Amino acid sequence: MDDRATTWMRRALELAASGPWPDPNPRVGCVLVGPDGSLVAEGWHRGAGTPHAEAAALAAAGDRARGTTAYVSLEPCSHTGRTGPCAQALVDAGVVEVVFAQPDPNQSAAGGAEVLRAAGVHVTGGLLADDAEALNARWTRTIALGRPLVTWKFAATLDGRSAAADGTSQWITGEAARADVHALRATRDAVLVGTGTLLADDPRLTVRQPQGGPAPDQPLRVVMGLREVPVDARVHEGPGEVLHLTTRDPRVALVCLWERGVRDLWLEGGPTLAAAFLEAGLVDEVVAYVAPALLGAGRTAVADLGISTITDIRRLVLQDVTVIGTDVRIRAVPSDDSTTRGGSRRAAPGTND
Amino acid sequence: MDDRATTWMRRALELAASGPWPDPNPRVGCVLVGPDGSLVAEGWHRGAGTPHAEAAALAAAGDRARGTTAYVSLEPCSHTGRTGPCAQALVDAGVVEVVFAQPDPNQSAAGGAEVLRAAGVHVTGGLLADDAEALNARWTRTIALGRPLVTWKFAATLDGRSAAADGTSQWITGEAARADVHALRATRDAVLVGTGTLLADDPRLTVRQPQGGPAPDQPLRVVMGLREVPVDARVHEGPGEVLHLTTRDPRVALVCLWERGVRDLWLEGGPTLAAAFLEAGLVDEVVAYVAPALLGAGRTAVADLGISTITDIRRLVLQDVTVIGTDVRIRAVPSDDSTTRGGSRRAAPGTND
Repeated sequence: MDDRATTWMRRALELAASGPWPDPNPRVGCVLVGPDGSLVAEGWHRGAGTPHAEAAALAAAGDRARGTTAYVSLEPCSHTGRTGPCAQALVDAGVVEVVFAQPDPNQSAAGGAEVLRAAGVHVTGGLLADDAEALNARWTRTIALGRPLVTWKFAATLDGRSAAADGTSQWITGEAARADVHALRATRDAVLVGTGTLLADDPRLTVRQPQGGPAPDQPLRVVMGLREVPVDARVHEGPGEVLHLTTRDPRVALVCLWERGVRDLWLEGGPTLAAAFLEAGLVDEVVAYVAPALLGAGRTAVADLGISTITDIRRLVLQDVTVIGTDVRIRAVPSDDSTTRGGSRRAAPGTND
Repeated sequence: MDDRATTWMRRALELAASGPWPDPNPRVGCVLVGPDGSLVAEGWHRGAGTPHAEAAALAAAGDRARGTTAYVSLEPCSHTGRTGPCAQALVDAGVVEVVFAQPDPNQSAAGGAEVLRAAGVHVTGGLLADDAEALNARWTRTIALGRPLVTWKFAATLDGRSAAADGTSQWITGEAARADVHALRATRDAVLVGTGTLLADDPRLTVRQPQGGPAPDQPLRVVMGLREVPVDARVHEGPGEVLHLTTRDPRVALVCLWERGVRDLWLEGGPTLAAAFLEAGLVDEVVAYVAPALLGAGRTAVADLGISTITDIRRLVLQDVTVIGTDVRIRAVPSDDSTTRGGSRRAAPGTND
């Protein structure tokens, strides 16, 4: 592609970056350029439930879309979700050429390039694809896996205790670490605990603002397990929804959450739930808050993983080590091949919608 | 003091820094300055068993010592150890004025200033005392405590396991972390494990060089506990001494080691031994190598500390967090008032000798 094409694609990526994050949908930008090389219209996706970038740009262009070239940061979709397929909309509007960056990783949504070509539109893919993918790295990964990404968070002492012998655990880590948890929770679209943790700790699971009080936008609060959630549990306080999944199977839970549009799950479950997710290969990131403190006894962060000897140790790869106040935050990810896809092979409803 | 005095004391500190480290003795420098303000002689302490800095300077000066002012980075000693008391030697040599930096923290060695004053020598203490103390920070602390400093090292997974369920532990951490352990061991004068760890892991406990093979100077290797040390244990391999302390009491062990001149102990004991030292308030620093890995079961780094509820958690203060290869090294120290002095109130033989 020539330099002008690259320049327009950079603009499309800039527009994409204006989109909301986190959001179940990818951030996408679209620029329509006339046959004379002048800008006709721009659009970007403003989050789930709003028009796609292409639709926004076409709406802004009106009749002037005819004969234009569309620069889009993601391959136009070919499926009908809450909005119609963008590939068809581009054809209908008379767009004659489409240049896109990242190919759509969504099996159910892909094929937009085919639809366009079949209609006689000139299509080029892959321009600045890496930049576009980086913009939506988590979305790309969740779509590729066909299940929500799972981040397991725990807090423990230097000797690996998440609670004292009598079960008390408030607080292992300091204020700064707890504030950091709230900040990271806010970047996920659901927070999950088991009924065991719910009954033991009665957590609110809300995102609280640094100045105090719950944030207006709350991740979905999810409780998982067969025991009942008391009506007066604190998880019911505060704004936003609470979902009780009456299953102990992480795979089942992730399918349910995927169907509801959850793409990025923050797991705060106790040792049993954590072990269940880990054993199923369903943890994509570990965020450990390690307090420089010793307990010598008490609950550990994770229950038996069926590992009996050192050669079966579950290795992770360090991503980031940061001192947060008086504590240390360690982020690590499993090696690439140790996580598994979701059980569901069905189309992903809500994806890119 | 005037600028010239400060300049001479800086020179004494420079000389002191030439001394060996680690060494059971403090690093000390001495400058003798004539009545006309010219340099007469210099000396510094070259390590345990060699003359003190003052003696070295006096020997270099010979008769020219008469009428000089001595600038010494540490208060001259007044006790007889392997060498005679320096305070008396300065008097005998005809030194008329002594300026020292750090007062001697050793209860049994202090009083040098008194001896000098009683003999009519003009004495000033405290010039650049902080710099002098920083030069011998660990020595100052061990003398103040009257026992060896104890650094407890352990390696564990992110979930706090130091061995798998079947007891295997080689290796939790990577090569870089293990090399770092060897580098830090080399800065201590003794390495201690319990007989339990000895029998389970059969460690060499030697300092190995980065290029392989044991280093020529080895810290004293100490095994503690009531069980016998097998004659074919690998701890007997390699250069240097092995000491078996037939006690389970950390206080007794530290008194024995203190008597042998050990000032800086590297503790690699298993969970029971670590717990015994921690419960006795005899750990001055914790060096934890945390591997980004999970085991879910197995031996923890430290046994029961008698802590039952979260409010009794043993807090440490972070000193340093460093990524070492694939692992994280966390150094932390107890808050100031939680470590205890040694049981021995006897004079410290070998100190400053």
